[in-house]
Amino acid sequence: MARVHNFNAGPAGLPLPALERAQREMIDFEGTGMSIMEHSHRGKAYDAVHAEAISLIRELCGVPESYYVLFLQGGASLQFAQVPMNFLPQGKSADYILTGGWSEKAYQEAQRVGTARIAATTEVDKRFARIPRQDELKIDAGAAYVHMTSNNTLFGTQWHYQPDVGSVPLVADMSSDFMWKKFDVTKFDLVYAGAQKNIGPSGVVVVLAKKSFVDGARKDIPTILRYGTHATNNSLYNTPPTFGIYLIRNVLAHTKETGGLDAMEKHNRKKGDLLYSAIDEDADFYRAPVEKGSRSYMNVVFRLPTEELEKAFISAAAKENMVGLAGHRSTGGVRASIYNAVSFASVERLVDFMKAFRKKA
Amino acid sequence: MARVHNFNAGPAGLPLPALERAQREMIDFEGTGMSIMEHSHRGKAYDAVHAEAISLIRELCGVPESYYVLFLQGGASLQFAQVPMNFLPQGKSADYILTGGWSEKAYQEAQRVGTARIAATTEVDKRFARIPRQDELKIDAGAAYVHMTSNNTLFGTQWHYQPDVGSVPLVADMSSDFMWKKFDVTKFDLVYAGAQKNIGPSGVVVVLAKKSFVDGARKDIPTILRYGTHATNNSLYNTPPTFGIYLIRNVLAHTKETGGLDAMEKHNRKKGDLLYSAIDEDADFYRAPVEKGSRSYMNVVFRLPTEELEKAFISAAAKENMVGLAGHRSTGGVRASIYNAVSFASVERLVDFMKAFRKKA
Repeated sequence: MARVHNFNAGPAGLPLPALERAQREMIDFEGTGMSIMEHSHRGKAYDAVHAEAISLIRELCGVPESYYVLFLQGGASLQFAQVPMNFLPQGKSADYILTGGWSEKAYQEAQRVGTARIAATTEVDKRFARIPRQDELKIDAGAAYVHMTSNNTLFGTQWHYQPDVGSVPLVADMSSDFMWKKFDVTKFDLVYAGAQKNIGPSGVVVVLAKKSFVDGARKDIPTILRYGTHATNNSLYNTPPTFGIYLIRNVLAHTKETGGLDAMEKHNRKKGDLLYSAIDEDADFYRAPVEKGSRSYMNVVFRLPTEELEKAFISAAAKENMVGLAGHRSTGGVRASIYNAVSFASVERLVDFMKAFRKKA
Repeated sequence: MARVHNFNAGPAGLPLPALERAQREMIDFEGTGMSIMEHSHRGKAYDAVHAEAISLIRELCGVPESYYVLFLQGGASLQFAQVPMNFLPQGKSADYILTGGWSEKAYQEAQRVGTARIAATTEVDKRFARIPRQDELKIDAGAAYVHMTSNNTLFGTQWHYQPDVGSVPLVADMSSDFMWKKFDVTKFDLVYAGAQKNIGPSGVVVVLAKKSFVDGARKDIPTILRYGTHATNNSLYNTPPTFGIYLIRNVLAHTKETGGLDAMEKHNRKKGDLLYSAIDEDADFYRAPVEKGSRSYMNVVFRLPTEELEKAFISAAAKENMVGLAGHRSTGGVRASIYNAVSFASVERLVDFMKAFRKKA
């Protein structure tokens, strides 16, 4: 059948040209008579892909040479543990800014490893409707690091300012909005992002890490869990998830061809603005629970007057080839995830559907 | 170009029908208008693939209901740490049987986590030419577990008997020969295997674990590193590497169609026997450094009279579309990895080449 309008929260839609390239090369990668996934991770063919994926991230995000670009496994969930294992020594405490379910999980894992402290939270009745303001951040100047989550897929919030954390190292989980636009990498000591929202399939985590931060990390932990191990070995200490990294290469090569992250930001803002406008225009029917200044351009969450109407909305949309619109099982409601690969046409299609649905309801 | 004869040590060749299926479905999985990697890991389409992959492993290996079948990330290298983190409590010691570089790495990681002991080693001058005999295994009856590596890719050795470790739990790294034939799962408390040799691409580790063993594991470690976490959540605690698991499904569906593991064992023995015969027939030119009773049916290691001849052999073979024949960078020599997906025809081709090369040399 025709490709659907994919509003999945992640794993999410990928650019068709990146998939078509993978399809063409599936049996015979660049005339080598093998799939890229059948190549040795220490051979020339894979090595070129690996290097290109890293260099595309460096170029598109403007990652300076003072930062490592790493490909790891285990998703953000392993990062929740790996960050404190590496950077939270005994006798120190780490600050966590809570803005939703994922940041809470990161905080809980840090507590399992060492001492963690809540530097700010916007939780009210188990819901997070906004990002904290700068004056709400109570940063411990002696903290080992501050951890934040740049975008929240469950509640549909996103940071739209760069928090000032003084001289404390800043660590960010950018899994759900990595590369949605350019950002200043040097404001962070470590950034991690599961690939499966904006840049590839599940099974690969991209890490950008300041070299001096990694070099100062704990060394008394398992080798494979040390960022330093992967940094020293250019993410080839053990066999990396080669096909996932290859697909990231395909996606980012396409991102570059279509104008890089400046074009991507315009594209994403246009989509988000259109969708939020449609919600606000019918505010007596569609309701956005997130404060305007904290609205996510990746996950647009909205409610209808009743849960029955929400169910009807989601299933009617699915019949018109718009999939993935159910809110997270813990929050309910409707959620349109409009990551990088979602086209403006898909959002237009959704907005038309919303208007028609509202008329009929 | 035509598909090559792929003798890579891993990532390795995959069955063509499994790749062709992935190619056909790359843009549109089963009429859903999405690639399988664009589907939610909590949706029906992926769920069916996940369940089928697990059930194929259960069926083909004969895994009883008293065992979990898990899909994890991080490769065998993360298992090296995860096994002692889960199963090696303070005050206890774990036994390691050393048969090569991988088992040494596993042992070193256990030492970083707790107390580990060498129960046997066949190392002589940094080389391992054989598997230890039963009477050489000095098992500590009070050990938390015994760890073994069923096949060694570097030195080309493989266990051909089931070691008796008394009532001590037995843990096996089967990364490089998992599913090369049927085996009695109930002899092991935990088996782990990186997928990238016999059953899929890199980025997925299969774990078979006795439920009672997992239930008795340590709980004071990071959530994501507990086997129990993944067991309770059917390997869906966090986003699994969906495309890798899908490919495992494709490979194992093909394995089942072509006769299951009994047929696979016949196929593998036929290949190995042919290749070792060719070596032994020209024993004044080709030399197998591994003792006969310990020879691997997965990685056939041999030497030529000089390193120059070895280089010439490897490069002449590559010109005839036989790739991946260089020995591991730490050992040198020639290594033909003849995993499940390598055809008998490829081995025949190699044997013909060996005979011709020997005549010319």
